[in-house]
Amino acid sequence: MTGQFVQPSFDLTSWSGERLERVERALSGWVVADAPAGLGEAMRYAVLDGGKRLRPLLVLAASEAVQGNAEAALRAACAVELIHAYSLVHDDMPCMDNDVLRRGKPTVHVKFGQAQALLAGDALQALAFELLAPPDRAIPDSVQAALCRMLARAAGHAGMAGGQAIDLANVGQVLTEAQLREMHSRKTGALLLGSVMMGAACGQPQGRALAALEAYGRALGLAFQVVDDILDVTADSVTLGKTAGKDADQNKPTYVSVLGLDRSRAYARELLAEALQALASSDLADTRALRALATMVVDRDN
Amino acid sequence: MTGQFVQPSFDLTSWSGERLERVERALSGWVVADAPAGLGEAMRYAVLDGGKRLRPLLVLAASEAVQGNAEAALRAACAVELIHAYSLVHDDMPCMDNDVLRRGKPTVHVKFGQAQALLAGDALQALAFELLAPPDRAIPDSVQAALCRMLARAAGHAGMAGGQAIDLANVGQVLTEAQLREMHSRKTGALLLGSVMMGAACGQPQGRALAALEAYGRALGLAFQVVDDILDVTADSVTLGKTAGKDADQNKPTYVSVLGLDRSRAYARELLAEALQALASSDLADTRALRALATMVVDRDN
Repeated sequence: MTGQFVQPSFDLTSWSGERLERVERALSGWVVADAPAGLGEAMRYAVLDGGKRLRPLLVLAASEAVQGNAEAALRAACAVELIHAYSLVHDDMPCMDNDVLRRGKPTVHVKFGQAQALLAGDALQALAFELLAPPDRAIPDSVQAALCRMLARAAGHAGMAGGQAIDLANVGQVLTEAQLREMHSRKTGALLLGSVMMGAACGQPQGRALAALEAYGRALGLAFQVVDDILDVTADSVTLGKTAGKDADQNKPTYVSVLGLDRSRAYARELLAEALQALASSDLADTRALRALATMVVDRDN
Repeated sequence: MTGQFVQPSFDLTSWSGERLERVERALSGWVVADAPAGLGEAMRYAVLDGGKRLRPLLVLAASEAVQGNAEAALRAACAVELIHAYSLVHDDMPCMDNDVLRRGKPTVHVKFGQAQALLAGDALQALAFELLAPPDRAIPDSVQAALCRMLARAAGHAGMAGGQAIDLANVGQVLTEAQLREMHSRKTGALLLGSVMMGAACGQPQGRALAALEAYGRALGLAFQVVDDILDVTADSVTLGKTAGKDADQNKPTYVSVLGLDRSRAYARELLAEALQALASSDLADTRALRALATMVVDRDN
């Protein structure tokens, strides 16, 4: 024995299960049923009973790694999920990807009409910010302001919305790997990185820990997209819960189209190793959930 | 002489002119041109060189009445205008009002396509919150958090987005005056009231002043909509800068359809009197700009 601390084995299913229960209950309470004229129903349909909730789990895992404010972390977890959910609602609309299936169910505009889908997405984005700035004093104003700042940047023109604009402009284009990375670092990467950093902002991590979490979040965000592109060609629609083969059909540039399948798979493993290395070299106390989530992102089959 | 303080006469054009210059310059700086893939261009087109900027002027006037933080007020003024602008972009889309003319120019989706219009609206909403939570310390965290909270509520399901859902559901319906008021208090009233209250939140008004500003904001918000409904039937498209007679064509319930033209005009004057009375009974130091703006709202011809 060298005296080194051996961490007990970690059960991601059990860790996630407890946290998902809290997130689902909170989302169900906060995504109001009584919004007028069917709007609440469309908002709830877009958010509840679906999705892997990867982003909320990242927020909670990062917050736990820095001993963050639990109430702030739960609100941040739900807020990033609302932004993700609204982006899917708008992205599925006929003027964008025109998709009819999402999480195995008809998309919001198919079920509620395009106008209601547009409004539900808009209202979900506003609600995300409302969650981050509660009137009670349980969350310090400085944390509220930081979370609003980070979410706005991750969701806006420099993040997710900007990435979608690049995506839109590049249908049918041939991209270099660098251009593809730039697009995805905004389109999906910004909100995944944002989830990690918002979790971190619920505590008061020092410079080295913060840098490690940022490196982890960047590598994980990119890995997520590489695996998404792989699954788009290797999985079927039932397993995915959404239309498979969509990117190829729409002639969108993907990691598989740029690197090929084998090199994409190897790249995903490299990114995972990078994410884990960032955590290993940090002085964060307990990074087991973060490590398990990164591994899950790369090993998932949907 | 009784010793009573006589306020010098007030020139709204001059007061507004100085403030609009600041607002336009700030918007032009903050609504980025370099957002990727044409997104910035669409966002700027949606926001710059157009509109009466009533909401920003209300924010600034309210903030001045409470000696608020000028930097916070300018950011809040621009943020409410971004929310207003995004709502117009989405509202004009084919799945909503399907309008091709706005402020005398082709609407955003006509000029940039529906997908880009959708994204530009989404990115403008995110940018509004980003403006309210700047990383520098010029604005106290408590003010940043309060502004985010108020804007999220005014824009979301309980405010503007909720009002639009009611509007959508009521095309072709006959509404009572109470139902019409409920719809408009959310659809346009919430953001106008929000503008006044966000301006107030830039300072530290006491209870009585805050109540007066709230009563003023509510009456003004409603008056704005009554006048809008009147102008929809009495003005032409060139004067309005948007399609006149639209509500009647789309069979939407309006104050004119519910109350008739004469009673609508009388109601607008009553609401103006109510707004002015609220200010008169307050202990706010200088309410001249607020009073002049309310009068302008009711007397405007576009």
